[in-house]
Amino acid sequence: MATSEEVVFDDTASESLSARFQRVRSSTIYLCRSLKPEDFVVQSMPDVSPTKWHLAHVTWFFEHFVLEPNLPHYKVFREEFNYLFNSYYYSVGPMHLRPQRGLLSRPSVTTITDYREHVDNAVLKLLALKGDDPQLAFLIELGLNHENQHQELLLTDIKHVFSCNPLKPAVNPEAPQPPVRSLAEHRFVDGVSGLQRVGADGNGDSFVFDNETPQHETHVYPHRLGSRLITNGEYLQFIEDGGYKNAQLWLSDGWATINERNWGRPLYWNQDLDAEFTIAGEQVLDVNAPVAHVSYYEADAFARWADARLPTESEWELAAREKPVAGNLAEADYWQPAAAAKDQHQLYGDVWEWTSSSYAPYPGFKPLDGSLGEYNGKFMCSQMSVRGGSCVSATDHIRATYRSFFYPDARWQYLGIRLAKDA
Amino acid sequence: MATSEEVVFDDTASESLSARFQRVRSSTIYLCRSLKPEDFVVQSMPDVSPTKWHLAHVTWFFEHFVLEPNLPHYKVFREEFNYLFNSYYYSVGPMHLRPQRGLLSRPSVTTITDYREHVDNAVLKLLALKGDDPQLAFLIELGLNHENQHQELLLTDIKHVFSCNPLKPAVNPEAPQPPVRSLAEHRFVDGVSGLQRVGADGNGDSFVFDNETPQHETHVYPHRLGSRLITNGEYLQFIEDGGYKNAQLWLSDGWATINERNWGRPLYWNQDLDAEFTIAGEQVLDVNAPVAHVSYYEADAFARWADARLPTESEWELAAREKPVAGNLAEADYWQPAAAAKDQHQLYGDVWEWTSSSYAPYPGFKPLDGSLGEYNGKFMCSQMSVRGGSCVSATDHIRATYRSFFYPDARWQYLGIRLAKDA
Amino acid sequence: MATSEEVVFDDTASESLSARFQRVRSSTIYLCRSLKPEDFVVQSMPDVSPTKWHLAHVTWFFEHFVLEPNLPHYKVFREEFNYLFNSYYYSVGPMHLRPQRGLLSRPSVTTITDYREHVDNAVLKLLALKGDDPQLAFLIELGLNHENQHQELLLTDIKHVFSCNPLKPAVNPEAPQPPVRSLAEHRFVDGVSGLQRVGADGNGDSFVFDNETPQHETHVYPHRLGSRLITNGEYLQFIEDGGYKNAQLWLSDGWATINERNWGRPLYWNQDLDAEFTIAGEQVLDVNAPVAHVSYYEADAFARWADARLPTESEWELAAREKPVAGNLAEADYWQPAAAAKDQHQLYGDVWEWTSSSYAPYPGFKPLDGSLGEYNGKFMCSQMSVRGGSCVSATDHIRATYRSFFYPDARWQYLGIRLAKDA
Amino acid sequence: MATSEEVVFDDTASESLSARFQRVRSSTIYLCRSLKPEDFVVQSMPDVSPTKWHLAHVTWFFEHFVLEPNLPHYKVFREEFNYLFNSYYYSVGPMHLRPQRGLLSRPSVTTITDYREHVDNAVLKLLALKGDDPQLAFLIELGLNHENQHQELLLTDIKHVFSCNPLKPAVNPEAPQPPVRSLAEHRFVDGVSGLQRVGADGNGDSFVFDNETPQHETHVYPHRLGSRLITNGEYLQFIEDGGYKNAQLWLSDGWATINERNWGRPLYWNQDLDAEFTIAGEQVLDVNAPVAHVSYYEADAFARWADARLPTESEWELAAREKPVAGNLAEADYWQPAAAAKDQHQLYGDVWEWTSSSYAPYPGFKPLDGSLGEYNGKFMCSQMSVRGGSCVSATDHIRATYRSFFYPDARWQYLGIRLAKDA
Repeated sequence: MATSEEVVFDDTASESLSARFQRVRSSTIYLCRSLKPEDFVVQSMPDVSPTKWHLAHVTWFFEHFVLEPNLPHYKVFREEFNYLFNSYYYSVGPMHLRPQRGLLSRPSVTTITDYREHVDNAVLKLLALKGDDPQLAFLIELGLNHENQHQELLLTDIKHVFSCNPLKPAVNPEAPQPPVRSLAEHRFVDGVSGLQRVGADGNGDSFVFDNETPQHETHVYPHRLGSRLITNGEYLQFIEDGGYKNAQLWLSDGWATINERNWGRPLYWNQDLDAEFTIAGEQVLDVNAPVAHVSYYEADAFARWADARLPTESEWELAAREKPVAGNLAEADYWQPAAAAKDQHQLYGDVWEWTSSSYAPYPGFKPLDGSLGEYNGKFMCSQMSVRGGSCVSATDHIRATYRSFFYPDARWQYLGIRLAKDA
Repeated sequence: MATSEEVVFDDTASESLSARFQRVRSSTIYLCRSLKPEDFVVQSMPDVSPTKWHLAHVTWFFEHFVLEPNLPHYKVFREEFNYLFNSYYYSVGPMHLRPQRGLLSRPSVTTITDYREHVDNAVLKLLALKGDDPQLAFLIELGLNHENQHQELLLTDIKHVFSCNPLKPAVNPEAPQPPVRSLAEHRFVDGVSGLQRVGADGNGDSFVFDNETPQHETHVYPHRLGSRLITNGEYLQFIEDGGYKNAQLWLSDGWATINERNWGRPLYWNQDLDAEFTIAGEQVLDVNAPVAHVSYYEADAFARWADARLPTESEWELAAREKPVAGNLAEADYWQPAAAAKDQHQLYGDVWEWTSSSYAPYPGFKPLDGSLGEYNGKFMCSQMSVRGGSCVSATDHIRATYRSFFYPDARWQYLGIRLAKDA
Repeated sequence: MATSEEVVFDDTASESLSARFQRVRSSTIYLCRSLKPEDFVVQSMPDVSPTKWHLAHVTWFFEHFVLEPNLPHYKVFREEFNYLFNSYYYSVGPMHLRPQRGLLSRPSVTTITDYREHVDNAVLKLLALKGDDPQLAFLIELGLNHENQHQELLLTDIKHVFSCNPLKPAVNPEAPQPPVRSLAEHRFVDGVSGLQRVGADGNGDSFVFDNETPQHETHVYPHRLGSRLITNGEYLQFIEDGGYKNAQLWLSDGWATINERNWGRPLYWNQDLDAEFTIAGEQVLDVNAPVAHVSYYEADAFARWADARLPTESEWELAAREKPVAGNLAEADYWQPAAAAKDQHQLYGDVWEWTSSSYAPYPGFKPLDGSLGEYNGKFMCSQMSVRGGSCVSATDHIRATYRSFFYPDARWQYLGIRLAKDA
Repeated sequence: MATSEEVVFDDTASESLSARFQRVRSSTIYLCRSLKPEDFVVQSMPDVSPTKWHLAHVTWFFEHFVLEPNLPHYKVFREEFNYLFNSYYYSVGPMHLRPQRGLLSRPSVTTITDYREHVDNAVLKLLALKGDDPQLAFLIELGLNHENQHQELLLTDIKHVFSCNPLKPAVNPEAPQPPVRSLAEHRFVDGVSGLQRVGADGNGDSFVFDNETPQHETHVYPHRLGSRLITNGEYLQFIEDGGYKNAQLWLSDGWATINERNWGRPLYWNQDLDAEFTIAGEQVLDVNAPVAHVSYYEADAFARWADARLPTESEWELAAREKPVAGNLAEADYWQPAAAAKDQHQLYGDVWEWTSSSYAPYPGFKPLDGSLGEYNGKFMCSQMSVRGGSCVSATDHIRATYRSFFYPDARWQYLGIRLAKDA
């Protein structure tokens, strides 16, 4: 579908919003460059959305939240799309049920491509008209960050779809393989503690989500953090030591989950524990690469087995905030975690790192007004905060204060493990 | 996908097996002529298979049962297809699970088209080599009858897929509409009774399935049969008379089913009871056309409400066997039941007619040898026999002794109602 | 609970209806003689009802169908019981949901015992008043046959409840053990064939259920029937020969069922295949006793493995109707199948015999009028006819024309296997 | 079952451990004084355990953790009870599945009473031998606190069982009704903020659970707390204002839950919203009594509707710790929340108060050694902390640092609402 050959990811501070809009929008198409029309349709489980749905939903977001309220005489592309491509904004109106997204063979990929063009043209026209309006700029920036999130989901979702196919097709057969490296030393490094300010101030200098605010004080106990992520090889030791058979290592919900679902290894490992399904098809397991696609339960059990624990959100953020956002992120084009180079901390990229903090509002949290208030706040229950982005996160989308969140049984995202200890 | 413009259905007694093979195989492609690649992928419920799966499965049937044992040096198109496209022949080997057929975006439609050509060429080559072998001719004829069955399923399945889409797309937007006719009189006509021979003798003169044999004697009580099918308008009266609210009309399983699934009308009727979803999209309900897409439970309850009953298999067969196989069948291209013309009995075509007979082996029944013995026999439990073919059955596939069968809760096929009474 | 020491089962042709009423009613209590109050409460699966519920439901049947319409000034024991103890008579009114019968700790066993006495006294009073009324006599006889059916269910249900308890308690710790006998020869014996009359004429000479009528003609093909039931030892050979692993032996639904539910042996056998749970607790498996607690699927697969088939209803009935109703029935007090003595046909008692006939209305069948029409007719779909009664059936309740019926996956009843073959 | 007439609850600081043991153990029996044997058996949902199971499980706890390791020559009452009455201590061994506890009619209530006596005598003997051993004293104290917890569960569980019975029986027909009072004023009161120490130091002066430790510092933002609990009348306003219909008030999981389960009012309210099912049967709704039996989702939505939020654990604890543990607790014998008297804060008793804090380990948390480490720690995921005890909590079991926890969809406990606001 995508034909663009140039490298589409490239952030520049001086980039205009129009340029950025075009860059982010076209990079979404670039991600689909190896897919056939049939691939855009399938939903392999309720958490997964069809590729086609992602392409349309992010477009609807611009149409509904940016164009309809702001562009005079804007004509919606097709009325039914408000029903089909609303994800979870109840205050906007009723919507197609999430688990049934895979029932829709229509609209076709071609129609959705037309939809994207229709909306893109209108947004660019709007930017030409009112590009200086800061509220509009915020909405467009929100839409682009939203699209960044769905770029990541699009890849993790189609990876899941392909993993369910006995033919084991590759999402990107030409993806470069991550570098092979010897095992980097793992140490526990002292963290920042005491009364600390965390979170983002949301003063508008740069984009943050509402859930990162307000900046606030928290008391952090002395602790140490793992110097890099846990590797496949280390996780293999946990398995071989009977980790999945030892109830005392597990949270009660975790023990129930691994037994009910018959889990005994990370999501995409093969039965022989020597290969894993990747964006490039099934590949030999790199024992020095970070383990990925483990649930919170597995991360927590591994940490207990290792006589350690998972870090809190604050511990992670305090370690990350002085470091530049760099690492194995989407632009590296591996879309697969990579072994740490010597002294590489891996705080950004590779895998989202499970924290021991449940995803909750910061003291004094206020969601956005109106329907956009449904963006983040209503998920603040029963999910765990994860930090740092993954190998399919866009670099300019990630920062130290960024909070993502998943249910403790989620595994289809690139989710991995960093250890912590009380000092 | 299909490009053929000529009329592909046309049976001639003198047609060679090669010609018939090419005609039936190409007619399958003809059925898909309005579909887009995305449409071939979706499975809307476990009973439904993706269009793509039908195209490949019938081809695998020829490859596995005809080519592999008979064509020297035949090279299978792709080994994995034996796993992906085996439907239910356990003795052949393990297979992809039925409810997961919709997870497969690959092989693509293009690859499956290539697969069909590969197999078609090989079968034609085999026919050129050994066309006189009666056992081979039987296997190919079985394969073609099998393909006929899947042509029907392909259409009912894609109709179901499209019915789940809020956009309500048409499978065939150019399908001609059935003729509008005034209501034909409904009478009860005396049937044939006494000790009668029914079933097919299977002497090889013409193709029959094993489940139609052996021909055998049965004692038939005096009875009368409805002169035509029950119409939408008559079914509407049943609804308006509170038919779905009156437990005494229903079998126990039926009452449980309609309450659990919230059924109050035929599958494809709209809530206002004035339109139904058809192959040509949503259309005004033709009150004089036969009611379709009702379960056995609904057919049985309607009959009780009408102070009648459903016919037995034998009663139906004795009425049908002197009549030519003609009616609103697939070649009419309506793919939708049509109102009866004056004195038109509608025994063939329009809708499969629910009988009160459970699908069971005839006395002395012997299934085919080997894996093909799994074709029919293993379904002889908990299903009801249906007779007469429907508006999507190929004419040369249907006959008086033909038995199809569905679970009593099935509705996605063209299933309708003829009444009977004790004389 | 019951303390009666006398033998309560004993039928005499000259017995008055009052005497018979008292005998049947008291025999129900006799069955519960070893139970504690806690035992009367539990429902181990939706098919099973608590003992207490059986005791009350059969009483409600007399109250609702006999007393309320016939005894002037009769005062119902408690209004709510019409809701709690109606089983499935929708036309009588709404009812407590079947799967929730085990949620009711109240009314207590004591209250239900009071209820029984209240109704018994009223029925005896009514009999004294109007004992000559044939319609009333029919209703009471229906109520007693209904109670006979629930006596059997009461025992099979509490057996199931106790089987779910790791303590494996005995329903009747003092039950005598069936006699140990050497294996009786198994032969195939010619059956009656040709055009035959089967069913009951229902002329009122003796009680029959509506589903046994009308007597009618049917054409029976030449066949032979097994001279006795299939034994545990024979079934063991089927298992050891890989019967549960060979898909070709099974109906499609059967194969799905045994795999989904992980069935590899009869319901109450232990894993070592050398003991079974009985009314008297776990006992060594008697290899010469009839196999029991197998589903239709298992009976059918066994027959196919044995190169035979199951008999039809008519074949069974024609063999049984010349023989006296005698065998290992409830009065023997074993409540467990017993090895056949030399030349013992075992047609009556031991186990209900699966037939290959689906449970369907006979030609010209008319259900009883009113709510009692719901007794049998509405179950005539998707179930299989079984014949001959079991080791927990009362002798005077069983006859050659008697039809019971179960879904093909039922196993908690005493259900077993007799073979047949085409002649 | 219980016949004791004396008041069994009565705490004295100077009470010996033997005396306290006897008092707590006998008070459990006292709670069951109105139950019949049948009532002890039923499990109405997986969260609920049969009364009988509670009586045996708490006894097993003493047998396994106190007697077996400490009393020389102790003979277990019955080996199988280790399997039947282990709740969730995987490291102890396999156990009967929780959702199947209601399948066990045996052991009978009488046997379990014998079991209790057997264990009680042995514990008293052990106390006479080694009463001075502080580790033993701790274990017994732990067992008694454990029994206190199950006393509460026993009552909430049997209340749920009875609520499922259309007869609506009363757990305690003679329970006194709580006092009727006019509505107390609701104000927001300043809370303690800044860097604060919370939690228990666990120095052994008095019993605390491991999850209350270690005492630690936390930064608390300025806030205000509601002066009393939210009442039924206030909750009624929320309902009448369309609270259950307004998606914007709800967490995403909450909205899904109330729609899937069709929730529109607290668990035990009737459809007319004017009565609720209580320990004393159905009673007129006291609009000034605290609302109870609401989930976290409902508490959170109510708070949002009221333009407030729920308190954090720390906020609650800082408010409660200076106040004596007094209020409507179990000893009041109401077993039902009561309207607040003037200026009554209701922090202790009436209902457990949902906090906005997920149940998580305190910084530096260490679970107990061995199997007892499974007591609390393994539940620290996906549950919310609740505080303050309820109307069925024993007074000497509750304290300011006490943490209980439930899943956000739990309603069968006495769970209610206190509001908080940022200052």
